[in-house]
Order: sequence, then structure tokens, then C-alpha cells
Amino acid sequence: MKIAILPGDGIGPEIVAEAVKVLERLRRDGLDVEWTHAPIGGAGYDAYGDPLPASTLALAKAADAILLGAVGAPKYDALPREKRPEQGLLRIRKELELFANLRPALVHDELAAASALKPERVAGLDLLIVRELTGDIYFGQPRGIRVNAAGEREGFDTMVYAEGEIRRIAHVAFQAARKRRKQVCSVDKANVLETSRLWREVVTAVGREYPDVALTHMYVDNAAMQLVRNPKQFDVILTGNMFGDILSDEASMLTGSIGMLPSASLDAHNKGLYEPVHGSAPDIAGQGVANPLATILSLAMLLRYSLGMEEAARRVERAVGAVLASGVRTADIAEPGVKPVSTAAMGDAVVAAL
Amino acid sequence: MKIAILPGDGIGPEIVAEAVKVLERLRRDGLDVEWTHAPIGGAGYDAYGDPLPASTLALAKAADAILLGAVGAPKYDALPREKRPEQGLLRIRKELELFANLRPALVHDELAAASALKPERVAGLDLLIVRELTGDIYFGQPRGIRVNAAGEREGFDTMVYAEGEIRRIAHVAFQAARKRRKQVCSVDKANVLETSRLWREVVTAVGREYPDVALTHMYVDNAAMQLVRNPKQFDVILTGNMFGDILSDEASMLTGSIGMLPSASLDAHNKGLYEPVHGSAPDIAGQGVANPLATILSLAMLLRYSLGMEEAARRVERAVGAVLASGVRTADIAEPGVKPVSTAAMGDAVVAAL
Ligand SMILES: CC(C)[C@H](C(=O)O)[C@@H](O)C(=O)O
Ligand SMILES: CC(C)[C@H](C(=O)O)[C@@H](O)C(=O)O
Repeated sequence: MKIAILPGDGIGPEIVAEAVKVLERLRRDGLDVEWTHAPIGGAGYDAYGDPLPASTLALAKAADAILLGAVGAPKYDALPREKRPEQGLLRIRKELELFANLRPALVHDELAAASALKPERVAGLDLLIVRELTGDIYFGQPRGIRVNAAGEREGFDTMVYAEGEIRRIAHVAFQAARKRRKQVCSVDKANVLETSRLWREVVTAVGREYPDVALTHMYVDNAAMQLVRNPKQFDVILTGNMFGDILSDEASMLTGSIGMLPSASLDAHNKGLYEPVHGSAPDIAGQGVANPLATILSLAMLLRYSLGMEEAARRVERAVGAVLASGVRTADIAEPGVKPVSTAAMGDAVVAAL
Repeated sequence: MKIAILPGDGIGPEIVAEAVKVLERLRRDGLDVEWTHAPIGGAGYDAYGDPLPASTLALAKAADAILLGAVGAPKYDALPREKRPEQGLLRIRKELELFANLRPALVHDELAAASALKPERVAGLDLLIVRELTGDIYFGQPRGIRVNAAGEREGFDTMVYAEGEIRRIAHVAFQAARKRRKQVCSVDKANVLETSRLWREVVTAVGREYPDVALTHMYVDNAAMQLVRNPKQFDVILTGNMFGDILSDEASMLTGSIGMLPSASLDAHNKGLYEPVHGSAPDIAGQGVANPLATILSLAMLLRYSLGMEEAARRVERAVGAVLASGVRTADIAEPGVKPVSTAAMGDAVVAAL
């Protein structure tokens, strides 16, 4: 099995290095995996003048799965849009048809106190956001800046979803819910948007194929409120690309330990790109203080979903659990009074626990 | 001065009745105001088959200001879109060009404990969301459901902002910031959307006219996180209609007492529609338990911004403050062990404190 490793920018290289330590250990123990590194984002631009170099895309296409660190850094802010780091990410999602973004928001018991929310509101939180990732206003045409009839410039974008796009992501959500608490809450803005009207109709129709899963609908503004008020009411949240971008970041911050959250972006054949939910954190890049656990847990998801190596995935997750239980903490999750360890020390602790 | 009173649906009539008690008392004390009631939303549909009856629109146009309760109830859910209660609200905003929606999220010290967030994260919170209200994907054309080239149905909507629309709402935000802590955070998704690219450019240009106000920009996904992580970092948040819908609901829920939050929607001449931030709460409608304070505080905003009656506005706000300080609570804001009072009793308490 081949993995493409794309460290990216900011803290990306540091955290990915720790996940690679875990991979090395698993290979030594007999796991049949190999991997190759390639640049993406700002690193791709620096090496080849392109945030998604052709060689990186080719490697990703040939691989069975992709592990990504993070993209973006202030030094690329002045570049034209198509050269900026985010474009590397948006393009690889689109090129590989990674339409299903799975973002769990999970509170580890040991870390519940770190949440901005009162502990009783988040203890035991375990929700999964299923976000459509290759459609919506992110990619809809036409878009641009034009001069309108009044002679003024106007910026415009197109939100659009076809039935088939809605159907396939809805199936992902219902399938996921079947393995969990059997509830799907579909989030839209059907009281205002035509796209949402179709979204709701198609999701409802798909839902009839899953009579064992309870389907509800919620407006996006209400969902943003309910995530604060009572996040534990949710099991699986199904939503589009734009609303999913906003709600999944809100949900991940609720946990108080965004440095712990992995994500997967899958195509129709379980090939996927795996990355931590947090960003490239340029403010702490290069200092060796970032938390590598979200990346290591992303690797566990990669082993499970794309490589079908459930046992190895569990082994990694158990090791992370053991390390947390032993009290080892990076700065972002350290309780007051606990001396934080470095990125590398955290990676070493996970390898030791394997 | 003429006020149009639009109670609407659900708890709307109950909470508006308490604000009218306050108005009656102010008139008895010599304030030069008169008012007329008219139906909107579901009530408009019931009376005239239209969520914004022509007579209601005419009354609103002729008035100096409008006080609204809330619109919407499940019994209208099956109606075609254009007959549904929300359309009454969307149309009155558009017809009266109420482009500037001001939504404060304020934590009253006495109520900080009610927040889902830890008290230290929200105590003293005082932020203002300035949301554009008559543009964006809410009204952009074209929109609809069509059959695409592949023979599939697709839903589509157009996000669009012209320079002039961005400029006028930006001025509202900078002016508001001048009277506050002199910080504007403009929220967009300029790393993905063309509309946001123009938004950021125009807001930056307007910002140069306010050298005394600090302007920052934030992506909407990050803003949704930062509101949870550290809401007190914000003074004025400036954003478009769609992002503002989501973020303002999130922000209001942070306070823990959404039953306390007023809002204003203003045109270019300070004529405005005032309404509580909370909705029509059909689950508690008719029970006499709803909190009327958000509506009474909306009336205070109305007196201040549209009628120029600053002294009367302060008097109402002071009365609300005194009632809170005296420990009177409706169910939504009652601490455990405190016996809640009814909607009418809360209104009476405010009148008594005037
Ligand atoms: C970097 C950006 C383009 C991206 C997105 O908006 O999808 C990010 O916010 C994410 O959620 O992965
Ligand atoms: C009822 C709905 C159309 C409305 C909106 O989306 O603007 C509401 O959510 C609001 O924020 O006032």
C-alpha cells in the first residue's frame, strides 16, 4: 500500500514527521506500507511555482491514500489567488473527487476541562460532521467581478448542487450514522435558498432508504446556535461545503482541543486524503511545540478507511489514548501546572506506547 | 411620531403586548408617540392570504419606525415558499431598504452564569454584529431549480454584492465602532469567494476614511471558531447577509440569554424595524411564559435610533436594568431555585420601574 505524504506549510512538516515515526514503527512490525513525500501549498509554490505541482498531483493519484499536514502562511498572502496555498488544497480535493469530508468533533474525557463550554455541556461529546467537499459555492460557475448595469463593480459567486451530488453525500452520512447513534441532522437554509430546497428534498428521499436512521432538518443559523447551546443533541450533521466549513470549525472549537481532531476527505472508492482539522498555525511554526496527535489520529483514520487496516488503526488510537491517560501533554492541551512536552516528545511517547 | 406595531406569530403578540404597555406609560408621561397594529407573517397570511399584506406594508412605509415581534409557526410549513411567514420579513426588509442589521450580543452581569460558555469567557461581553440585510445570496438573481446538461435537476443561487452596497454597510460599521471600542473585524471568505474578494477590497478602502478605527479581516470559518474561543476579542463584526445570519445567531447564543437581545434593521435615514433576536418560539406560544425584555429593549433602540428620543430610550433601559437587579426573572433566565414570573408580570415590573 502506498501513501503520499504532503507536509505542506507552517507546523505541517513538524507534525507530519511524528506521524511518519508511527508509520515507521508499524512497518518495522510488519505492516505492508510505503510512502513518498511531496510538496503542496506554499511549499509547492516555493519548489515549483505551483501550490499543487503536477508531480505532487501525480503522486497523490497513484497513491492509495494521502496524509496532509496543513497549508498556508502569511508570506504567501500577496500572491495572486491561483498561486496561494489554499488553492493546492481546493484543487487536490476537486481533482481526486474527494467529495466526502468527515470531521468528528470528539471530546476526550481527560481534556473536557479545556473546552470554552462548561464541562457538563461537552463531556462525552461525539459528533460527526459530514461535509460535501467538491461542490457548492466553492466551485460553482459563473463567478467573478464584473461591472453591473449601474456601472458599478460587483462580485458574484454561484451556489449550486445537482441531485446526484446531494444524493452521494447523503448516503455517506446515513451509512456513517448506521455505525453510530443512527441520527442524521441535515443542515440547510431552505427558507431562503433554492439550492437548499433541492438539498432538503433529495436528502429526505435518500433518508427513506434508511428507515433505521432518524432524519431531521435544521436551518444553518439555528444549527450554529444549537452547537453552542447543546452540542450533544447531534450525532451526524450532514451539510454542504460552505455551511460545513463554518459549522465544522465551530464544532471543533467546542471541544477545546482542536489539536486532537483528525479528518478524512474520501472519494467514492474510499481513497482519501487525511489531515488534522487545525491549520498551519504559522505563529508557532518551527518551535517544536505543536500537537502532533491530530495528525497521528488522521493516520489512524487513513489506515482504517483507505487501507482497510482496522487492527493497525486501533493500535494507533489505543496508543494515543494511553499517552493521554499517562498525562503527557503538548502546550495546547496542558492543564495549568502541567509542564508541556515538545512535538517530538509527544510523537516518541505515542511510538513507545504502540 | 408614528410606530407600526407588527406582533406576528407564536410568542410575538404576547411579548409585543408588554412593549406596548411600556409605550402607553411613556405616552402618559408626555412622550409624543402614536401607534397602529397590523399583521405580518403567518398572521398576515391568515388575515389576507399574504405574509406581508399591502395594508401592512403601507402602514410600515408611512410610520417613523416599526416594532416587530416574531414570525413563523409550524402550521405554515406546508405553504408554498412565497406564502410562508419568513417571506413577510424578507420582503419588508427589502421594500423598506433596511440594509443595516445591528445585532448586539451583550452579557448582563447578573445573567453571565446562564451562558453555555464558562463565565470568565463571557462576563462583560459586549459585541455588535453589523450584518448587511438586503443583498447577498438572499436576493441575488438568477436562482432556482433547473435541469443541467447531464439531465439532472440542480438548485442554484447567486451570491452578489455591488461596491455601493458594501460601502454603505461598511460606513455603518465604522460609525458604530467610533461610538464603541473603535475596532471593526470584517468577516468574509476571501480565500474562496470572488464576492468576498471585492468585499475585502471595498471595506479596506472605506476603512481608510476612519483612521481612528482599527480594521481587521477574518475568514468566516475562523470567526465561527473565535466566537467560541474568545468572543471578547471582538468589538464590531461587519459581515454580509448570509454569514451574518449564522454568526449573529451563534453570538447571541453565547450570551446564554437570547431572550434579552434586541436588534435594529435600519435604512439610510435611520428609519428602522426593531425586533427581538429570538424567534417566534411556537413551543411556548400562548403560555404567557416568554421573556418580553428583548422586545422592550428593541423598543428602547427604536426610541433612540429612529425617533431620536435618547432620554426615553435610557429610561426604558434603566428600568430593565432595575428589574433585573431586583431579581425578577422569566423562566428562560431564572437561576435554579428562582421562581419565574409570567410574561405579563415581567412587563408590569418594567412599567413599575419606569
Ligand atoms: C483553506 C480553506 C480553503 C479550507 C476550506 O474553506 O475548505 C479550510 O477552511 C478547510 O475547511 O479545509
Ligand atoms: C427567518 C429568516 C428568513 C431570517 C434570515 O435568515 O434572515 C432570520 O433567520 C433572521 O436572522 O432574521
